[in-house]
Amino acid sequence: MTRVWLNGRIVPGEEAHIPVSDRGLLLGDGLFETMPVYNGRVFDLGAHLARLASGLAVLGFAEAVDAQKIRTAITQFAAEGSAAGAILRLTITRGAGPRGLSPPDAPCPTVLMTLAPMPPARAAPFSLRVAQSTRRNETSPLSRIKALPYLDNLLALREAKDHGADDALMLNTKGKLACASVANLFVIKGSYLLTPPVGDGALPGTMRALVLSLARAAGFEPAEASLEMKDLAAADGVFLTNCISRITEAKECDGTPLAQLPGAAFRLRSLIQSRFEAE
Amino acid sequence: MTRVWLNGRIVPGEEAHIPVSDRGLLLGDGLFETMPVYNGRVFDLGAHLARLASGLAVLGFAEAVDAQKIRTAITQFAAEGSAAGAILRLTITRGAGPRGLSPPDAPCPTVLMTLAPMPPARAAPFSLRVAQSTRRNETSPLSRIKALPYLDNLLALREAKDHGADDALMLNTKGKLACASVANLFVIKGSYLLTPPVGDGALPGTMRALVLSLARAAGFEPAEASLEMKDLAAADGVFLTNCISRITEAKECDGTPLAQLPGAAFRLRSLIQSRFEAE
Repeated sequence: MTRVWLNGRIVPGEEAHIPVSDRGLLLGDGLFETMPVYNGRVFDLGAHLARLASGLAVLGFAEAVDAQKIRTAITQFAAEGSAAGAILRLTITRGAGPRGLSPPDAPCPTVLMTLAPMPPARAAPFSLRVAQSTRRNETSPLSRIKALPYLDNLLALREAKDHGADDALMLNTKGKLACASVANLFVIKGSYLLTPPVGDGALPGTMRALVLSLARAAGFEPAEASLEMKDLAAADGVFLTNCISRITEAKECDGTPLAQLPGAAFRLRSLIQSRFEAE
Repeated sequence: MTRVWLNGRIVPGEEAHIPVSDRGLLLGDGLFETMPVYNGRVFDLGAHLARLASGLAVLGFAEAVDAQKIRTAITQFAAEGSAAGAILRLTITRGAGPRGLSPPDAPCPTVLMTLAPMPPARAAPFSLRVAQSTRRNETSPLSRIKALPYLDNLLALREAKDHGADDALMLNTKGKLACASVANLFVIKGSYLLTPPVGDGALPGTMRALVLSLARAAGFEPAEASLEMKDLAAADGVFLTNCISRITEAKECDGTPLAQLPGAAFRLRSLIQSRFEAE
């Protein structure tokens, strides 16, 4: 984290601080977006801003955030990203407040952006573990927005790593598959490309939406469908999506091999890349 | 927030800042305790430290925190609280980390304490609303520790206030009563004093434990029991507990009056006060 944009000013990372009264720190009261930057431009910015707006509406401080100013700031700050690619994280908290849970009447949000190098692409397919330690709360509207708290996903990921897996699959409270720790889940079944509905606790990922929109061009019928463990075992292919790694195929879950459909991920990756180049 | 203790140093509130790379801010990756201070001493400190230890174990960075040093720091900082009473909030995050969800191998926690004036005691009983907007996730171990993320409780509280109620009751994902936004729930039924079990999503509150331990002296048989909405309607009395307000009686829920048992809260308050004076 070498360059930081904080409340309108670019500051060196080691000088970027927030007051300890910030509700983002004290209560997790805020949102974030993680966005890929190529050649100084954010890919699929509109989708990220739409999700941000949805999150601000749920948390109830949308009126305190100037969406147009945020868009302009992102565009300008992204231009500082290297040509090799970068990850821009935008964090918006409700800012400082009085002691306790009740938010201030007139919040003054903290807006923070950081740029980090794009990590190298992962070549090998993932091994997955279905988290036993916690579940995704599909009964909360927070499951549908990118709120700061990521502790459940962190517990699930740590459990997966402790068992030698690359990532966790999270069940919702009813035992349906919801998502991975920082990715959406897709299952290929015959001609269908299936992903858990948002109502099952899946975060509405930007890459999830893009893959659904490109599925037919890749030869699949896209559908949101509640999925269970048995659907993984019966799948013709399983992959994860997020906006940084795009598509990562899964090779096994809980030690059991998963089928892989040659060419499917390649076709989808090519379509995403075409969309990217056209943007 | 006039005095702040931050990583071993007392600093004026306006100079107390944390780096924007802190995982408490970025991911909600941390814990807190809110403790009442009277005459410069924390009441029931051992119970708060035990819960903190339990939270550190769940989050997996207990070995990075020197519990004895924390206890000493709390005791010393609490001595700065006014004789009229104060609220000491301790916040511990996993500190800074690399980009992404995975925690650092050797975390360097941020430890923060603030002192705020004790608010005036609330005289009137509470009106309650059962939150429709979100539910408590009893399937997550986070429901049993005092982790930083409080957004679900915040949504529930806001909904209650929007409907003219003082506080929210939260159901768990199975529809059982779990707790209020920052308090535990107790129901008097005949000679029984009932409170939802931790397994139903109730935070193991320090005042909850104290009330359970004092119940017999107040003439009640204490028990943890799953509670539903109908149990409120049939109750002989309903009250909330937390370590700051101690006991607050509820007078209605969703507009329906709740029974109140004269003397019950008074007896429990007196017993708590005796315990406090003996500490």
